Amino acid sequence: MRFHGTMTVNGQDHLSIGGCDTVDLIREFGSPLHIMDEDLFRQNCREYHKAFIEEIPGGEVAYACKAFCCQAILRIVCQEDLGIDVVSGGELYTALRAGADPSRIDFNGNNKTVEEIRYALENAVGRIIVDNFTEIETLDQIAGSLGVRPKVLLRIQPGVAAHTHQYTQTGILDSKFGLGISSGQAGDALRIMAGKQNMELTGIHCHIGSQIHEKETFAQTAQIMAAFMAGVSKDGGFQLTELNLGGGFGIQYTDADHPDTPEGYAQTILQALKEVFEQYAFPMPRRISVEPGRAIVGSTGTTLYTVGSVKGAPQTRRYVTIDGGMTDNPRPALYQAKYEMCLANKMSAPDEMTASLAGRCCEESSDVLIWDVPMPLAEPGDIVAVPSTGAYHYAMSSNYNRVGRPAIVLVSKGKAHVIVKREDYADITRNDLIPAHLLA
Amino acid sequence: MRFHGTMTVNGQDHLSIGGCDTVDLIREFGSPLHIMDEDLFRQNCREYHKAFIEEIPGGEVAYACKAFCCQAILRIVCQEDLGIDVVSGGELYTALRAGADPSRIDFNGNNKTVEEIRYALENAVGRIIVDNFTEIETLDQIAGSLGVRPKVLLRIQPGVAAHTHQYTQTGILDSKFGLGISSGQAGDALRIMAGKQNMELTGIHCHIGSQIHEKETFAQTAQIMAAFMAGVSKDGGFQLTELNLGGGFGIQYTDADHPDTPEGYAQTILQALKEVFEQYAFPMPRRISVEPGRAIVGSTGTTLYTVGSVKGAPQTRRYVTIDGGMTDNPRPALYQAKYEMCLANKMSAPDEMTASLAGRCCEESSDVLIWDVPMPLAEPGDIVAVPSTGAYHYAMSSNYNRVGRPAIVLVSKGKAHVIVKREDYADITRNDLIPAHLLA
Repeated sequence: MRFHGTMTVNGQDHLSIGGCDTVDLIREFGSPLHIMDEDLFRQNCREYHKAFIEEIPGGEVAYACKAFCCQAILRIVCQEDLGIDVVSGGELYTALRAGADPSRIDFNGNNKTVEEIRYALENAVGRIIVDNFTEIETLDQIAGSLGVRPKVLLRIQPGVAAHTHQYTQTGILDSKFGLGISSGQAGDALRIMAGKQNMELTGIHCHIGSQIHEKETFAQTAQIMAAFMAGVSKDGGFQLTELNLGGGFGIQYTDADHPDTPEGYAQTILQALKEVFEQYAFPMPRRISVEPGRAIVGSTGTTLYTVGSVKGAPQTRRYVTIDGGMTDNPRPALYQAKYEMCLANKMSAPDEMTASLAGRCCEESSDVLIWDVPMPLAEPGDIVAVPSTGAYHYAMSSNYNRVGRPAIVLVSKGKAHVIVKREDYADITRNDLIPAHLLA
Repeated sequence: MRFHGTMTVNGQDHLSIGGCDTVDLIREFGSPLHIMDEDLFRQNCREYHKAFIEEIPGGEVAYACKAFCCQAILRIVCQEDLGIDVVSGGELYTALRAGADPSRIDFNGNNKTVEEIRYALENAVGRIIVDNFTEIETLDQIAGSLGVRPKVLLRIQPGVAAHTHQYTQTGILDSKFGLGISSGQAGDALRIMAGKQNMELTGIHCHIGSQIHEKETFAQTAQIMAAFMAGVSKDGGFQLTELNLGGGFGIQYTDADHPDTPEGYAQTILQALKEVFEQYAFPMPRRISVEPGRAIVGSTGTTLYTVGSVKGAPQTRRYVTIDGGMTDNPRPALYQAKYEMCLANKMSAPDEMTASLAGRCCEESSDVLIWDVPMPLAEPGDIVAVPSTGAYHYAMSSNYNRVGRPAIVLVSKGKAHVIVKREDYADITRNDLIPAHLLA
């Protein structure tokens, strides 16, 4: 298993993260448990800060908090001088409660509600990324009624097919997000936005998908966006000054993944932009944003589970059963995502069996986190660690089977702090009501 | 679109359910909104009650509440004289809070925790369905320490491959659930259980999967289970008297689905059991249980959404964007599940366009509920109704994008009652904690 951040093996032959023994963490905080490596999270923030903010004039990094969102994490994001990309009122609420500077919040989303747009404007978020024609009118009306003039960018379909799961390929022309360049709709929308009283059109935005490794894909996207930005500005008689290229920067879940570095992505994008803007004799954007989520938080999370049983018969598959599963990690079921694992309480034990890691939910193969993985002889009570679970785990978790979501513990320098409390039975049933006619 | 239960079109050309105008429901309770048809739910309960409890000697129906679980619904289940199948401490807690008779609760699950087993025994649930060798020992120990002797059944892999999605095919030999007949493990486990002081071995259990239409599959399963039950009893020198055949009875989501009736399933199963038990000269079981979940609740739910925008350009797909999606209905993304829909505020309008129903989440094709469906000309503000969303919707829902889960309203005879409150921003952030070192 690949080690990330502060992971080491300690004198008890246990996996240690942030200077904390993971077996002790389970004893103290219960099982299953999400661990977040604070030092690694800060390091990832700093790498993106350096590559995009320090080394690109006008560069901005907005942490895409849909990957992992809670108040403590957003507080660290602010301390590390990154902006925040939110996609709902709930994420915005969390960011504001965490003390984020509203001017560094971007509000994305293909179908923001009227209430959410009003909430964003009342709190003076930095930019609204407008998705479609209807939203232009809705936003103009609400901004007018509030007497504000928000900075707005338009979400564009650049027509790039990234090499990733079809579920997360968002830059193609057949997309629910944004408006297309080739259809003329993007240009039409920008001309409408430029004419609106109650918004300040500053630029364009795109996002081509998730878990993309090839920097050439980002370069190609940057070229298309730059060419369009220059061309549409000249044609439309307005000046776009901001370019947001979204996120999608991949991470290494297994040996099959070969992501580039933040530096690599940043310089490739910068070079592509310089070439195109020079060619069009158009000034470089005053603001060049990216929105990494997974790339910052993915590797910083590790999920710990306790083994309940080891099952199997001759000629059948062997299963190691854990006390979590698709409720805390739906990615294998949704995207056929691949993970690694180890037994955190016997780190030096050699692999002696092959088994599949089965969850506790009443579902069959959708609740298997890893198929046929080599591991030491597992026994009930062993602690399984699955790394790289920082992104789209807690964020996508459910209460299926009325299972409570695990606690999340932030670890650093031997100290552990709960940043999200474990859900108990009272939490799960909190919103249940029994109408009077059923009480009879 | 297929109508279910009390659905009608009212004088305003609106979809009505339980005598309530769905457009009014959205105005009163907000959007999106889950509607549960109380009369249809009770009717489905009664059909299963009649087919399995009234017409089969020793028949029992345990509502599989993993399909949809909240206190109000379980209260109706009790009023309709059905038992309850729970698979977690959270579901058991909900059932007990709803006032269920513990003796009619079956506790299933492939990896019950020690705490859950203790909780179930302390509350004297009717039966524990034991999954594996480890659980036999854990249960024996906990029961012994509490001085109780629970009725137990063993989960069996009958080796039947049902015609359904591979994610939900749970009766096959390569399964994380139960123990196999052909490997000898099921027989071994039963002999061990028969010898344990602290449990009363009463029978065997199986569950072959979900959304199965063919009654022949259930007949085949019943035959295998009956033959095993008779054979293992004679060989083992103990007498099994209870047979639980699980659930999996399908419902009609679209015209492609052709489920049988409860009566049809019941009589087919009964006939199959009679034949085998006669052949083995073995008495019919004193208790014959089934565990329908989806079959009772699936058709009783309808989800209402509000259209945010209608998008599309010549030569690209058209999208109708709604204010929910994979957060409230993950089944299209997980199982490629198919649904129907209508515009609830213009029921008699003819179909004039084809579009895909896209959710509000920041995901691409995983957040499309229905692809390329004919519909009337849709406009922002229209109300979309998606029927047959009673099972595995609220149960599997998430807070992805920190979107709150919709309210659930129970409707009957013109009256509407909230049975699950809408999640607000405070709910979503309730368990967030900021450690002191991050407040500095």
